[in-house]
Amino acid sequence: MSFKDLHKPGDPLLLPNAWDVASAAALAAAGFPAIGTTSLGVAAAAGIPDATGGAWPETLALAQRLARLDVYVTVDMEHGFSDDPAEVAEYAARLDGIAGDNLEDRHGDPRHHAQVIAAAKARAPHLFVNARTDTHWLGVDRTDTVDRLRAYVDAGADGVFVPGLVADRDVAVVVAGVPVPVNVLFLPGRTNVRTMVDLGVRRVSTGSFLFRAALGAALDAARSVRRGSAPVTYEIPTYQQVQDLVP
Amino acid sequence: MSFKDLHKPGDPLLLPNAWDVASAAALAAAGFPAIGTTSLGVAAAAGIPDATGGAWPETLALAQRLARLDVYVTVDMEHGFSDDPAEVAEYAARLDGIAGDNLEDRHGDPRHHAQVIAAAKARAPHLFVNARTDTHWLGVDRTDTVDRLRAYVDAGADGVFVPGLVADRDVAVVVAGVPVPVNVLFLPGRTNVRTMVDLGVRRVSTGSFLFRAALGAALDAARSVRRGSAPVTYEIPTYQQVQDLVP
Repeated sequence: MSFKDLHKPGDPLLLPNAWDVASAAALAAAGFPAIGTTSLGVAAAAGIPDATGGAWPETLALAQRLARLDVYVTVDMEHGFSDDPAEVAEYAARLDGIAGDNLEDRHGDPRHHAQVIAAAKARAPHLFVNARTDTHWLGVDRTDTVDRLRAYVDAGADGVFVPGLVADRDVAVVVAGVPVPVNVLFLPGRTNVRTMVDLGVRRVSTGSFLFRAALGAALDAARSVRRGSAPVTYEIPTYQQVQDLVP
Repeated sequence: MSFKDLHKPGDPLLLPNAWDVASAAALAAAGFPAIGTTSLGVAAAAGIPDATGGAWPETLALAQRLARLDVYVTVDMEHGFSDDPAEVAEYAARLDGIAGDNLEDRHGDPRHHAQVIAAAKARAPHLFVNARTDTHWLGVDRTDTVDRLRAYVDAGADGVFVPGLVADRDVAVVVAGVPVPVNVLFLPGRTNVRTMVDLGVRRVSTGSFLFRAALGAALDAARSVRRGSAPVTYEIPTYQQVQDLVP
């Protein structure tokens, strides 16, 4: 089954997002057929602020390593790491062995973002471009969400992503408004995956959730050692299990 | 207080081990005055098997980033990433802004490991060299543990580390046998920190425990999304909290 075919109506792609080889390999070993990256995780792991365009070297290095895994990999390209559509396209073309990428508009000029998408598709047509609009994520004007997404689909986007989209009615409007798979972000306690499926969503991704869960668990474990109490409640992989994850 | 002074009798250094900038920055923000690295975590994050000497570039890159944190950092140097003492010493000399390092003998020739330690101390005397013997860790002959450690101290080691050391009597023998701080590895359910303190241990480190806890929590979170149930029980940092960790 191709990466695109994993976006099935009624049986969507549940896409966990990794930030390094170990997390990606562990998720692949757990049976997820495709893995995304989280730009927050990739940037923070390297000590770089997210969404500032500074983590392209780390993103590319990780993509090259994840391409060796036996799963589909889609890469969070932030805003493209450049304002120049041709440069974004060159970056996308370097994602050898990768199935797709996310490109976010940051609620900037939708015509510019459409140009970025068109350039990326022209240069690297094999990549499934998931065009993200930040109208809901940034809590700004949401009225043109569908207009933006349609412009991105017209430019060649293979799917669309609206993080922050949670209300059933809003989801239904987006699904009805575009002819490509719709991706929503899983938000703990707010996103009901079953409901999203019923509404026609075809990809649910986890964004930085897993990365933040990992960081929280590590901190909790460190504090429990300091306190001398409170065993951690989740299953912890053994040393050998982690070693065996290395491709 | 210097890094060396943190190894206080009766109030030992509790040293959590990080694998990337985010985990180190989070641990520093949680009040730990010093952070170690875990070679398993650093290697696995990069898709490299641990303890094979292949992760020196990643170890150095991480050390350079962690040096910017406002805590002491000590670097897990595995076996030195080389069999040549002079080369290990050159590597150690590149650890600018770092407080110390671990060098493990892998239960090889103790005279060779003493040469490595002597070369590293001569070339980078400011580093607190924690000399590790793997007699207990590898489950091999343990009878020469103290002899090995004394040879490493004679070669210039500032502290000694015996992962796998858990029995009270074994700990007491090592503490009585060497004139420098003794480091034990925290093993969940097996290591009682209070008891270790009473026995004179002056450093308790977490090795790969936090890294494996993080990986386990991320997997658990991904599976909970797939199941559509089971909220994770630990506190998860927010996006902004992670962003704010970036130095």
